[in-house]
Amino acid sequence: MRRAGILGAAGFAGIQLAHTLIHHSEMELAAVASDSLAGTPLAEAYPAFAGVTDLAFCRSEELEELDLDVVFLAVPHTASLEQTPRVLERGAVAIDLSADFRLKDASTYEAWYGTPHTQVDILADAAFGLPELFPAELVRARCRREAGQPVVVACAGCYPTATSLAAAPAIRSGALREGAVVVADAISGVTGAGKKPSARTHFCFANESLEAYGVTTHRHTPEIEQILGIGGRLVFTPHLAPLNRGLLSTVTIPLADGASIASTEDAHRLYRTFYEGATFVEVLPAGQQPKTSSVVGTDRAQVGVAFDARTRCIVATAVIDNLGKGAAGQAIQCANIVFDMDEGAGLSSVALPI
Amino acid sequence: MRRAGILGAAGFAGIQLAHTLIHHSEMELAAVASDSLAGTPLAEAYPAFAGVTDLAFCRSEELEELDLDVVFLAVPHTASLEQTPRVLERGAVAIDLSADFRLKDASTYEAWYGTPHTQVDILADAAFGLPELFPAELVRARCRREAGQPVVVACAGCYPTATSLAAAPAIRSGALREGAVVVADAISGVTGAGKKPSARTHFCFANESLEAYGVTTHRHTPEIEQILGIGGRLVFTPHLAPLNRGLLSTVTIPLADGASIASTEDAHRLYRTFYEGATFVEVLPAGQQPKTSSVVGTDRAQVGVAFDARTRCIVATAVIDNLGKGAAGQAIQCANIVFDMDEGAGLSSVALPI
Amino acid sequence: MRRAGILGAAGFAGIQLAHTLIHHSEMELAAVASDSLAGTPLAEAYPAFAGVTDLAFCRSEELEELDLDVVFLAVPHTASLEQTPRVLERGAVAIDLSADFRLKDASTYEAWYGTPHTQVDILADAAFGLPELFPAELVRARCRREAGQPVVVACAGCYPTATSLAAAPAIRSGALREGAVVVADAISGVTGAGKKPSARTHFCFANESLEAYGVTTHRHTPEIEQILGIGGRLVFTPHLAPLNRGLLSTVTIPLADGASIASTEDAHRLYRTFYEGATFVEVLPAGQQPKTSSVVGTDRAQVGVAFDARTRCIVATAVIDNLGKGAAGQAIQCANIVFDMDEGAGLSSVALPI
Amino acid sequence: MRRAGILGAAGFAGIQLAHTLIHHSEMELAAVASDSLAGTPLAEAYPAFAGVTDLAFCRSEELEELDLDVVFLAVPHTASLEQTPRVLERGAVAIDLSADFRLKDASTYEAWYGTPHTQVDILADAAFGLPELFPAELVRARCRREAGQPVVVACAGCYPTATSLAAAPAIRSGALREGAVVVADAISGVTGAGKKPSARTHFCFANESLEAYGVTTHRHTPEIEQILGIGGRLVFTPHLAPLNRGLLSTVTIPLADGASIASTEDAHRLYRTFYEGATFVEVLPAGQQPKTSSVVGTDRAQVGVAFDARTRCIVATAVIDNLGKGAAGQAIQCANIVFDMDEGAGLSSVALPI
Repeated sequence: MRRAGILGAAGFAGIQLAHTLIHHSEMELAAVASDSLAGTPLAEAYPAFAGVTDLAFCRSEELEELDLDVVFLAVPHTASLEQTPRVLERGAVAIDLSADFRLKDASTYEAWYGTPHTQVDILADAAFGLPELFPAELVRARCRREAGQPVVVACAGCYPTATSLAAAPAIRSGALREGAVVVADAISGVTGAGKKPSARTHFCFANESLEAYGVTTHRHTPEIEQILGIGGRLVFTPHLAPLNRGLLSTVTIPLADGASIASTEDAHRLYRTFYEGATFVEVLPAGQQPKTSSVVGTDRAQVGVAFDARTRCIVATAVIDNLGKGAAGQAIQCANIVFDMDEGAGLSSVALPI
Repeated sequence: MRRAGILGAAGFAGIQLAHTLIHHSEMELAAVASDSLAGTPLAEAYPAFAGVTDLAFCRSEELEELDLDVVFLAVPHTASLEQTPRVLERGAVAIDLSADFRLKDASTYEAWYGTPHTQVDILADAAFGLPELFPAELVRARCRREAGQPVVVACAGCYPTATSLAAAPAIRSGALREGAVVVADAISGVTGAGKKPSARTHFCFANESLEAYGVTTHRHTPEIEQILGIGGRLVFTPHLAPLNRGLLSTVTIPLADGASIASTEDAHRLYRTFYEGATFVEVLPAGQQPKTSSVVGTDRAQVGVAFDARTRCIVATAVIDNLGKGAAGQAIQCANIVFDMDEGAGLSSVALPI
Repeated sequence: MRRAGILGAAGFAGIQLAHTLIHHSEMELAAVASDSLAGTPLAEAYPAFAGVTDLAFCRSEELEELDLDVVFLAVPHTASLEQTPRVLERGAVAIDLSADFRLKDASTYEAWYGTPHTQVDILADAAFGLPELFPAELVRARCRREAGQPVVVACAGCYPTATSLAAAPAIRSGALREGAVVVADAISGVTGAGKKPSARTHFCFANESLEAYGVTTHRHTPEIEQILGIGGRLVFTPHLAPLNRGLLSTVTIPLADGASIASTEDAHRLYRTFYEGATFVEVLPAGQQPKTSSVVGTDRAQVGVAFDARTRCIVATAVIDNLGKGAAGQAIQCANIVFDMDEGAGLSSVALPI
Repeated sequence: MRRAGILGAAGFAGIQLAHTLIHHSEMELAAVASDSLAGTPLAEAYPAFAGVTDLAFCRSEELEELDLDVVFLAVPHTASLEQTPRVLERGAVAIDLSADFRLKDASTYEAWYGTPHTQVDILADAAFGLPELFPAELVRARCRREAGQPVVVACAGCYPTATSLAAAPAIRSGALREGAVVVADAISGVTGAGKKPSARTHFCFANESLEAYGVTTHRHTPEIEQILGIGGRLVFTPHLAPLNRGLLSTVTIPLADGASIASTEDAHRLYRTFYEGATFVEVLPAGQQPKTSSVVGTDRAQVGVAFDARTRCIVATAVIDNLGKGAAGQAIQCANIVFDMDEGAGLSSVALPI
């Protein structure tokens, strides 16, 4: 039984981690820290826990004093720059859900996040956490753990996860048209905007409305470009829609003239092969597009792909629960791998049917 | 006072026409036809009309016997091919909300709608109804009416309206990169899927979900390409989101190296100038993106535009009420012009603030 | 043209007042005050106003310096106790949407609102604003205005309006069973919870959920009892549901053995007669219950009534838009009466059909 | 391992049964029958199952030929009258989710369902399935099974379950005021209206609206009266609200003068004691009311209770997932008891926290 803790446990990603870890067969949730809610029982802040757990939030410092095997950091960016070193000092594996260790190039971080990266040494060794696309990163992290070296996993963001899962098979096949731009338009439910009450997350402003936001400026842009290796060629536009959980990314990829894909069936075969054996990515039958409701409450993605013969583009869509495969689920999947447990321990692929 | 009738009045576009025409100061709504609901009071099918109107649906034949100045056809495609000639025979102006007279090339119609176009003579003279982009079409239609010639206005579809309003200023400026693909990802509320109950429109399947549909195959694709003059270069992907009314189209347009636009301010200036004087298109301040809730219940569009210096693309978004500017509102705007009334008679630009 | 101002204009009731008054044919909206948003254009805070009005919020003091005929107070309770005297001093009619002048008995106010009533003189002369049930109050207010006396109208709250419209015909007929309790269970959309962002109004907590709140303690209880004259006999339980606008109250009224009502038809006749001539209350056909969507964006109520022969109870339901007939619409209706205008000037009975 | 089958598996209750039984540790889901979807894979009709199960719907006859230990009937009323005898003939336990065997008195069934009860012998021996209130019924059913006698469990309906769980502690304490009426106003999400597409379940009509329905006539009325033993004294009014899953019932119970309850604390103590040891009913702390979102996807109820000293009424609210504790979950709970398994096998108490 590994002992786990969560920093930033009161936010949406943090509480989803708690929800999942409480029932993890090989991890024991030893502490859930939230400085704003310290002392409050989980069941008071989130009444779904009433009668389920007596756990209460503690202060971050209390958590940091415990002897833990793994700490999940569900904190805002820059907070992780501060807290990760302390986690490592105590010998725990740091599974970071913030953006602080995702971008390999510290200057890119500074350019997009407007603040210098203060932990470049840790950054150099951090593993990128998106197991289906970077399995070697996590193998290396596991080896480091076994060798007693500090381990940080920087889990991919929600939009990067869905967008990259949709785009990677096509891009990695080398079929991207030279000089062409990749367009990713993604839509997220409101849990993606976080727990903090604001005009933006007020029911009456979010409900019955759609909007694009962060147009040309969203910080997930360089992360997706890094994952796909298409620096400076991505236009990424996120949108907000009135639902709680669920994220859909639609990616349009112009293909080179010489690319061998000439039909939706070809594209589908490429994707099926690419994700063969991936527990948490399901490629739907050719011609079928996924719905976000099929993955709500789960830790997996569903992917659909089509080929547009008129324009010679692949159009691929991927759906995830932004708090599942887009946050807590992926973090736990990474931890499972690092600790050499079953990759899917504690995780779920089964959504409510309606 | 012009006498108006509606064919297909029980569907969503039809009933929205009725809703608006009932209060039109220069048109009298003489008849609302629905063969499936003939005899039923509007207030029974749509209880918002209780105490507002005593009108009841009649059969199409009853409507066709009346002496009307204008008939709005809110019928499915192919039905309009049948009914429009009869409307014209009786001397009325036909304002067609179906797709039957939108595509100038009958063979394109046949290719995408899977059925031959049986009214090519009428098609040749039909005006395309999207006043902000094709004002001359409606001037010509007005002249034809004044000359006693038959008049058909083929109103633009909902997705084509929003997508083209977002893209036209950039495309018509000649700035589109040679050989590049234009990507339009659009999201619609469920009224866009029509009134017919189905698994797709069932609350429990549409609610709390997002999905792409009609990927690479949606019939609005050739219509948008025709409007923008970019045949074979558009990838259009529509999506369904859980709200009633509202349609958002996000268009990504790669610019040629020589294009003079180098900033969001440049792009914004181009758009503001383009829509100067347009009553029903509001370009938001630079850096601001519209929300669909700002246009629900209205007959206008709001447009936002940004320039992505990294990829040299314009990203423009437009929002409409798919039943307003995307259907009934635009149809009435066209009729107003054809009958030389105030363009905005009976129409609204004012949404509920929340 | 009467000159009107709004205090507390940035909140939901206030902005709805602005929305309606902008188009009022006999009132000119001279100023909209909000201390928190002073200087901000309406269109910035509520983008539905973009291109519609150039009005900006001003400070309350600025408004108070203007020469106005009428001031609408859309402020929290106790704030009205402070501001109403100043409005009256300047000679304007005060239309108060807060709770401060609704309860005729100052000690009841103190008991339920936890603060002493500091304006008992004004309270003594305040008219209660629910025109269908208390027409004489508004006639008296009009006479006072004509006589140059200070006029305060205390508009009924949202729950009291719907609940009382549903219950009054039965209660006033004298049929209430002796000693029996009247039960009102009401459901409101989230605009009823106000504009202030909080956990309660966060999209992700309000969405996909239902809850009762203020059980046995909601402050509208004594107001409803006062309206209906059933002190100490009402159990009122409000509920929150995931929609923006709309309020439904279901009232169960046990009838005395001697009551002459013996069928739904009898009850329906009673209700139809009671509301004969009421512009803003529509009694639906017997056996039909209203939907809130039929009144969204309007200023009227719809009412349905049934008789339960098994238990000898009337079950009546009423729906309103909580911001329309439940707030801004009713306030303007009252002002229209006080200023001897058409009762319905500027108001609407027509909701979007879908 | 018991072998289970589902009749009517394509409907909402049926598919929820499938969802739960697939992961039941002591039951094997051998067949899911749906005559309308026979041959279709579950994953095609409900894409949440993609990659999760290869099961396909079969015809009812195919299921009836299998050797099964238990058959869940998720069929409409009257269909169960036909199918239950065949299930019993094959020696399987029948767990019936329809209304056919709930009302002990066949004439009450005929009065409310408008059709004679054709299986009065089976009815006489049927157990009523609401374990927290009628444990002895299920013990008797288990004994019958062990004795090789035919077993039918008639699971309580969704509204009766929530309403009775809210009311039973007060009613069974004998505190109900003589001659007083009990009022239950309940609100359900749209899954409660079933899978069949209709105007009622169309997204655009159900969304952003509230309505009462079945006023004074809903068939769950006699069922609740039977459970609580208050024949002819219940006014039950169901409402529809725009959410998928979740049912809230608010019950107002006037207390006799002699009743010992004088505070919310008293009432709370009564309820806590009553549900001591109940795995699937959680009484919240005094003063707290449950939200439906806390039980979505689970098989349990949450209950809140308050006492209104002014009117001497208990107001209790209960929430369930109408497809969980209100349908599939309760059916499986009953089956677990009948087969002497752990009462909670396969069931869940843990909702997503947001």
